[in-house]
Amino acid sequence: MSQTTPSLSIVKTRAEVPLTIPVTAVNERGEVENKFIACERPLTVYLNWRPIVTLMTLGAKAESLALGYLKNQGFISDVSQLESVIVDWDTNSAAIITKEQTEDLDKKLSEKTVTTGCGQGTVYGGFMQGLEDIQLPTPTLKQSTLYALLKNISEYNETYKNAGAVHGCGLCQNEKIMAFVEDVGRHNAVDTLAGDMWLASESGHDKIFYTTGRLTSEMVIKVAKMGIPLLLSRSGVTQMGLELAQKLGITIIARAKGRHFLVYHGAENLEFDVSKES
Amino acid sequence: MSQTTPSLSIVKTRAEVPLTIPVTAVNERGEVENKFIACERPLTVYLNWRPIVTLMTLGAKAESLALGYLKNQGFISDVSQLESVIVDWDTNSAAIITKEQTEDLDKKLSEKTVTTGCGQGTVYGGFMQGLEDIQLPTPTLKQSTLYALLKNISEYNETYKNAGAVHGCGLCQNEKIMAFVEDVGRHNAVDTLAGDMWLASESGHDKIFYTTGRLTSEMVIKVAKMGIPLLLSRSGVTQMGLELAQKLGITIIARAKGRHFLVYHGAENLEFDVSKES
Repeated sequence: MSQTTPSLSIVKTRAEVPLTIPVTAVNERGEVENKFIACERPLTVYLNWRPIVTLMTLGAKAESLALGYLKNQGFISDVSQLESVIVDWDTNSAAIITKEQTEDLDKKLSEKTVTTGCGQGTVYGGFMQGLEDIQLPTPTLKQSTLYALLKNISEYNETYKNAGAVHGCGLCQNEKIMAFVEDVGRHNAVDTLAGDMWLASESGHDKIFYTTGRLTSEMVIKVAKMGIPLLLSRSGVTQMGLELAQKLGITIIARAKGRHFLVYHGAENLEFDVSKES
Repeated sequence: MSQTTPSLSIVKTRAEVPLTIPVTAVNERGEVENKFIACERPLTVYLNWRPIVTLMTLGAKAESLALGYLKNQGFISDVSQLESVIVDWDTNSAAIITKEQTEDLDKKLSEKTVTTGCGQGTVYGGFMQGLEDIQLPTPTLKQSTLYALLKNISEYNETYKNAGAVHGCGLCQNEKIMAFVEDVGRHNAVDTLAGDMWLASESGHDKIFYTTGRLTSEMVIKVAKMGIPLLLSRSGVTQMGLELAQKLGITIIARAKGRHFLVYHGAENLEFDVSKES
């Protein structure tokens, strides 16, 4: 997606960082194999010179990750507030400057509430706010389109195919993949896409969110905040993930691989147009 | 493992909470299937009446999870400091009381440093401390023992087999599995085993740590803190995970499934006693 916020200046000390590195490993036959493993690097996010969090990340699209994280955690609500983003891989930092001081930054930093479904992320006070205001449209999807999308997705996951140990997320429209991000942390991948959409002022209402990861509570909340009514996962769903999807009106298609899937919520929004024989 | 800290009182409002719940899902043929999904519930950990973190967890062994988390984050170093643990599933809380006040609790709470490899966990100031003091023995493992262990592990993962969407971790000695924990968060599973070992005053030096999850930096650090010199994963390893293992002297066997594996560090500690023909 292309950035549609010209007022925002984005500076990067390097165009990109490597996402995998070559290593050797010894296999079960005692033979040395040349392999690649996923890079993992810390990225400390600063908001108006205040350190907010250090994310362990693959490092692709650090500016989108930093912005998506700050938006999802409720630190910044409006892209027009942004003045500049400086990603510096020499100091492993992403510095975000807003036009005005962010209101009650201290208050937000002091309100650590719920942690990530993936384990132990601290989610700041702003994270749970505004959920009740979220209004999502009812999605419609043809089974044939879903199969075409899953086929297209199988051509992504480059780092995963190369090195494993990463999760992938895709922002999709019908069978098209508009953006695909991989990261060592599945929540980073989601936040990066959120940052992308935010910068591009892209609406989520006509989109499908794909993830290789499990659909835990935080994953569903983030997708709802992106305004996306359909969540597609290669993996499974948890109780809280499902309950939140039911509350928020998000269609949940999990265990989606090849020509198999399970709709855990919103099956009425799927058009079964593929004959059962095929 | 059985608790060997009689001075510590552990009170639970319920013996156990359900780990999966039945749901219906619609498959690709439009048929309704009865499925189980993993439970996910918040557990707020209090240390001497101060809320420390809220973990999203499956809920098995909450007392071990809470203690393991506090130990791994450097809040409590000595099991003899513990007075009582109260796990209350009516308020989704685990309250830990120590005999004396924990020193510089505020300081630790203010020192949020690195986040989890899985995404965005806040790791408190104490987490990185004391790594340089860790001395691990050199492990030895026969390939035949490794295969026997992998075969035994395949009989665990009950919640995963039933509902998916969880990670499993096992504390192993040779081919034996001493404890196996599953959780919706892979870091919770590790912390739970750390809490178990701590309560049982179990040494990690002769143990193997197994996880279904990726070996990111935080995973390797936690295993090092448990004193375990051999880390075995069904999944892959990241660059920082590998670099830390090399620094800390942890043998890394990843991609371990069936009769396949890749040793990323410490291959000299593995005895290839299985003939290549077999």
